[in-house]
Amino acid sequence: MTTIDRRALLAGSAAVLAAGPALAAAPKAGVQGPGVYRYRLGDTQLTAIDDGTWFVKIDDDLVRNADTAAVNRALAAAFLPPNILPVSFTVLLVNTGSKLVMIDAGTGGQIADTAGVMLANLAVAGIEPKAVDAIVISHFHPDHINGIKTKDGEKVFPNAEILVPEPEWTFWMDEARMNTAPDRIKLYFRNARRIFADLEKEVRRFRPGAEVAPGITSIPAFGHTPGHTAFSIASRNQSMLVMGDAVRNPYLFARHPDWQPAFDMDGALGAKTRRQMLDRAAADRMLVEAYHFPFPACGHIARSGKGYELVPAPWQPLAPEPRPRAG
Amino acid sequence: MTTIDRRALLAGSAAVLAAGPALAAAPKAGVQGPGVYRYRLGDTQLTAIDDGTWFVKIDDDLVRNADTAAVNRALAAAFLPPNILPVSFTVLLVNTGSKLVMIDAGTGGQIADTAGVMLANLAVAGIEPKAVDAIVISHFHPDHINGIKTKDGEKVFPNAEILVPEPEWTFWMDEARMNTAPDRIKLYFRNARRIFADLEKEVRRFRPGAEVAPGITSIPAFGHTPGHTAFSIASRNQSMLVMGDAVRNPYLFARHPDWQPAFDMDGALGAKTRRQMLDRAAADRMLVEAYHFPFPACGHIARSGKGYELVPAPWQPLAPEPRPRAG
Repeated sequence: MTTIDRRALLAGSAAVLAAGPALAAAPKAGVQGPGVYRYRLGDTQLTAIDDGTWFVKIDDDLVRNADTAAVNRALAAAFLPPNILPVSFTVLLVNTGSKLVMIDAGTGGQIADTAGVMLANLAVAGIEPKAVDAIVISHFHPDHINGIKTKDGEKVFPNAEILVPEPEWTFWMDEARMNTAPDRIKLYFRNARRIFADLEKEVRRFRPGAEVAPGITSIPAFGHTPGHTAFSIASRNQSMLVMGDAVRNPYLFARHPDWQPAFDMDGALGAKTRRQMLDRAAADRMLVEAYHFPFPACGHIARSGKGYELVPAPWQPLAPEPRPRAG
Repeated sequence: MTTIDRRALLAGSAAVLAAGPALAAAPKAGVQGPGVYRYRLGDTQLTAIDDGTWFVKIDDDLVRNADTAAVNRALAAAFLPPNILPVSFTVLLVNTGSKLVMIDAGTGGQIADTAGVMLANLAVAGIEPKAVDAIVISHFHPDHINGIKTKDGEKVFPNAEILVPEPEWTFWMDEARMNTAPDRIKLYFRNARRIFADLEKEVRRFRPGAEVAPGITSIPAFGHTPGHTAFSIASRNQSMLVMGDAVRNPYLFARHPDWQPAFDMDGALGAKTRRQMLDRAAADRMLVEAYHFPFPACGHIARSGKGYELVPAPWQPLAPEPRPRAG
């Protein structure tokens, strides 16, 4: 188990207080505030946990069918600086009342210096890793599975059953495929083994389309990876769509759903899946969540021009628990 | 002084932990996560502190020149429920390095049950009320000044100089005006006295247009109230616009800048000020902040149709402090 320090995120704050009575110039804090956001869907409580942001230098291969100038124009339209793609990571916790389910596992601090605050934020949320009953994985890319284990290979969530899409397991655990994969992709195959090989008996594989927990149904969303899976969550008469990596940065890939990011293994299928998902979300005015949307990573999708836009859910107090039905 | 409980916001979390080893069903937390967001502007550190949201029932008088059906259409376009205006409150702390300046003072928990978490969030940010050097007030509406004092009339920020716009003081502290005001407005006059009357010697009045702290310049933005004042903050070659109540809920009043909210005392002047401010922000691609934007209440303004839209700044890690210039 990693050491969880409930005050880790407040380190900057402690420094402020330790600085003592110098009132004229309170020192500037050195860390971002905690990233914990709770909302409700019917009887289900959702908690978005920020794991940080990876600032990826954009090269000419970021989008297969758009050049860097077009990508930079899309960033500028969102008032973002050129040549850098902010890739944020938000882990979603779903408390159904009977189960505490985590969707994707964060970066484990193993992807970028500016990411890896998930466990500290989980502590701020008052959730101990041992309270997580299940981890449901969308796909096997490292930024979604690395949080399952520490760098040293220890399990972080000792009581969590791990559920993975069957076709994702079949693809990434295939030795022959690994041996013939290009080096860059070979790293992903090896990483999947690092995380899962010794957990094989504990991992439950599900067929995309199946219910994975009470009220949480998986949805085939192939393209980004061969077994990439989305989820819908339903409670009472409300439902939301958890899109995983089907839609990544909204300013690029919701605005331009046909752009094929290099990180989609099957670019054309990824684009088709993306359009289907955005279209359904917009038509049904569904609440959506996506792992790489800016924290708290939830909102709605509106049609806009030839694409879509994310309308982020406004930050607001946690709504009261619905009353039980009479009778 | 009020009692500041650093753990107040974590009460729900504590309940989770106190519930002990029942791992199968982690209790749902009852409170929103802490609302503290830090960002940087040149050498200046900004901290947005959430004070909660007031859900105002919309009646036919909310907008003088638009009917409730039109208002509800604007809410629906933002995926918000009809007939309720979410009015969120974000206090902005500006650490210039030499001064810790607070812009507006929060509701003091005296406006709505769902607002009043500012001091708890300030504690999460590691900022003690005694560390605040100055409070700069945009205008004298209760939700901007009540946080200066407790309900019992005690000062919350004992070391803070209070700076107020001269025309705002002149208007609200005028006995003759109070006596002839309608009852609803009379309450505001009385409230201004409750907050300021015994602090008169400590309050510094400034002429809108003047610099109020190093790098913080006031801007006349009359209309919402007779002396309503905005601010610009500048550091190195960066600047941002703090719009106060010139633009309130962005989905109504940035999208429809000519709509005259009932809470603008001079509707036509308020609309003119709003357009000027939005136009300047859009033309100069300025970072903006507004007290009633959804937390963390910062972003950019883009022209959109006949109005404007808020592009919220994406949540991201605190950027490193800029290095000192060589030489």
